[in-house]
Amino acid sequence: MLTQYFTACSLDGFIASDPEDGLTWLEVCDGDPDGPQGYNAFIAEVGALVMGATTYQWVLDHQDGPWPYEIPVWVVTHRTFPQPTGDVRFSSAPIPEIHTALVEAARGRNVWLAGGGDLVGQFHDHGLLDEIWVQQAPVMLGAGAPLLPRRIELEQIELVENGDFACRRLRVKR
Amino acid sequence: MLTQYFTACSLDGFIASDPEDGLTWLEVCDGDPDGPQGYNAFIAEVGALVMGATTYQWVLDHQDGPWPYEIPVWVVTHRTFPQPTGDVRFSSAPIPEIHTALVEAARGRNVWLAGGGDLVGQFHDHGLLDEIWVQQAPVMLGAGAPLLPRRIELEQIELVENGDFACRRLRVKR
Repeated sequence: MLTQYFTACSLDGFIASDPEDGLTWLEVCDGDPDGPQGYNAFIAEVGALVMGATTYQWVLDHQDGPWPYEIPVWVVTHRTFPQPTGDVRFSSAPIPEIHTALVEAARGRNVWLAGGGDLVGQFHDHGLLDEIWVQQAPVMLGAGAPLLPRRIELEQIELVENGDFACRRLRVKR
Repeated sequence: MLTQYFTACSLDGFIASDPEDGLTWLEVCDGDPDGPQGYNAFIAEVGALVMGATTYQWVLDHQDGPWPYEIPVWVVTHRTFPQPTGDVRFSSAPIPEIHTALVEAARGRNVWLAGGGDLVGQFHDHGLLDEIWVQQAPVMLGAGAPLLPRRIELEQIELVENGDFACRRLRVKR
């Protein structure tokens, strides 16, 4: 069972550009979700996931059809959101407690830290981040939301090309 | 003849961490300068290079032996430096003029923009950046000097692994 941060980012390490602009820089990129290090193989091994309030709001705003996740989702927030349509649990508990709940819900499968970067950093601060999977787009953004605002030594597991993306899977050194 | 930005950076897009720390994060990484997208094949095609004052000062401070470049070097600066030991030309001329001088000195070979990121951005602002070669280390820095503080659409030419590094060669879309 691993706790993994899986995300797309720009070549200069931003997961989102300014709010007006959104993810248009990402949407023009070509990647195969069934290809190497693609989303479909990744999510198949995930049993629960967690995201911050900004990421959750983004998912809600861009939801095109039913709630996209079949597995339990934690949203770390102090904010109040409308009643969710999927299995969503809002929590402002300490990160280690949330992690314990995620691991239990995942029933032996992996836990996905879906972002943003600072939330993932909080899991890392507690020694709870095992792996990072990044799909790096061929674009410089110059500014935006940081990938993971921490200093972390990593070890590469695999580097592959998937469409326009450079995909890296890395292990956090302990 | 191409104008190329060749640099190492962290996974989150920093070319240098805070000043005390320097490039220790980079020095522990293992890469082969004779390997794919390595420095030796790159520099063999370069006829002239340019860097900013901070990068030049860093080269001076870390010079271990004779001046490392056999080709002409421009330093874009308003500052005054001691008399250089190599072929170094200090200039505060407009970027297009410096580029013309670089191209002339390169005699049909490529021009290397050695950094920092903002200087490379100034060349890009004038449409004078053709390619980016980055060697991305398996480390998050969380803060530092940015890779290239501009928004730039790119097209990947080649992705290769060299030791610990993910090496990408990309073309600026025009």
